[in-house]
Amino acid sequence: MTEKATIVVESGDFDKLYSALIIANGALAMGMEASMFFTFFGLLRLKKGQLDKGPLSRMHFLGLGKWMIRRRMKKANAASLERMLADFVELGGKIMACDMTMEIMGVTKEDLRDDLISDYCAVGSYIQEARGSTITLFI
Amino acid sequence: MTEKATIVVESGDFDKLYSALIIANGALAMGMEASMFFTFFGLLRLKKGQLDKGPLSRMHFLGLGKWMIRRRMKKANAASLERMLADFVELGGKIMACDMTMEIMGVTKEDLRDDLISDYCAVGSYIQEARGSTITLFI
Amino acid sequence: MTEKATIVVESGDFDKLYSALIIANGALAMGMEASMFFTFFGLLRLKKGQLDKGPLSRMHFLGLGKWMIRRRMKKANAASLERMLADFVELGGKIMACDMTMEIMGVTKEDLRDDLISDYCAVGSYIQEARGSTITLFI
Repeated sequence: MTEKATIVVESGDFDKLYSALIIANGALAMGMEASMFFTFFGLLRLKKGQLDKGPLSRMHFLGLGKWMIRRRMKKANAASLERMLADFVELGGKIMACDMTMEIMGVTKEDLRDDLISDYCAVGSYIQEARGSTITLFI
Repeated sequence: MTEKATIVVESGDFDKLYSALIIANGALAMGMEASMFFTFFGLLRLKKGQLDKGPLSRMHFLGLGKWMIRRRMKKANAASLERMLADFVELGGKIMACDMTMEIMGVTKEDLRDDLISDYCAVGSYIQEARGSTITLFI
Repeated sequence: MTEKATIVVESGDFDKLYSALIIANGALAMGMEASMFFTFFGLLRLKKGQLDKGPLSRMHFLGLGKWMIRRRMKKANAASLERMLADFVELGGKIMACDMTMEIMGVTKEDLRDDLISDYCAVGSYIQEARGSTITLFI
């Protein structure tokens, strides 16, 4: 049976989302399966136009300007969130969107990056993925 | 052997606590066992009167008023934290309270929702639960 | 095969780092192996002089002064981060430093607590540890 990594993405923070995608793509690159369940602030990042636009605020607090961070990430060949998420889907990763969050936050499919999302579902689908996974994380 | 989910609840944020309980109750509903280990800010939420009163501040930043969030959650049939935690215990979930946090924060059993707590314990008890678990999360 | 716990330390918050080390040392004490992968704000805590100096700010919000927290932690025999990390390494725990974070943040080996770090590496090394682990956490 193929090993799997299942990650809940609850945070919308740039650094957290970045870490989630690095790990998820790393798992795929190592021959594992990978699923990401986007909920609350994580799901809001899947709204159209929110992926790489969002706040770099916490990084900013480190004393590095946004421009400096983007320049260093480019120099370090660090991909954008947009690119990493596209790679994730192309490599066979599964993106699940929490339908309860959509209802509470008043978000519709039309608001979201439907091109990337495999499934609109609830916690039962997450548990089903997670119980068969070697790596389970909440980010 | 029954599969188990073990969740450390370290955060006191409403959205994080909500996610933890949705996952924990989802695991129980799918026939798994589930344990939650409350520590630091998570444990402070188990003080009497703190469960549903606590700050909705991060949600608030989204531009939704508290009243609006509560109304939408009601419309989405989203249960209160109080109700979800009661369900969790009734369905056989185990709630562990971190005794070191109690000592550091000066919290006594009398301050806490003793009616919900199965065990006052330390990290060894958590490890014992987690090592036998399919799903392990830190929230 | 020995069981293992693998923890990503992404946060630099005092309480999160504290929880991570309590769990990691707890796993070692129970006869498990343990690995910690420090990235982003977690890695910045491994810069020389940053371990116990860092912000207690979130604790501070609870209304306890820093002096009071330190006094209570001492009374509760709660060790310092410095001491817990030294114990972790001495008991055979493995500390991995994320090299991509170093490049993005402009951090060099000379800036870091090289005496504690076992390995400077990327996500592949983390996945390799995590896929063989019973307990996987993102903190």
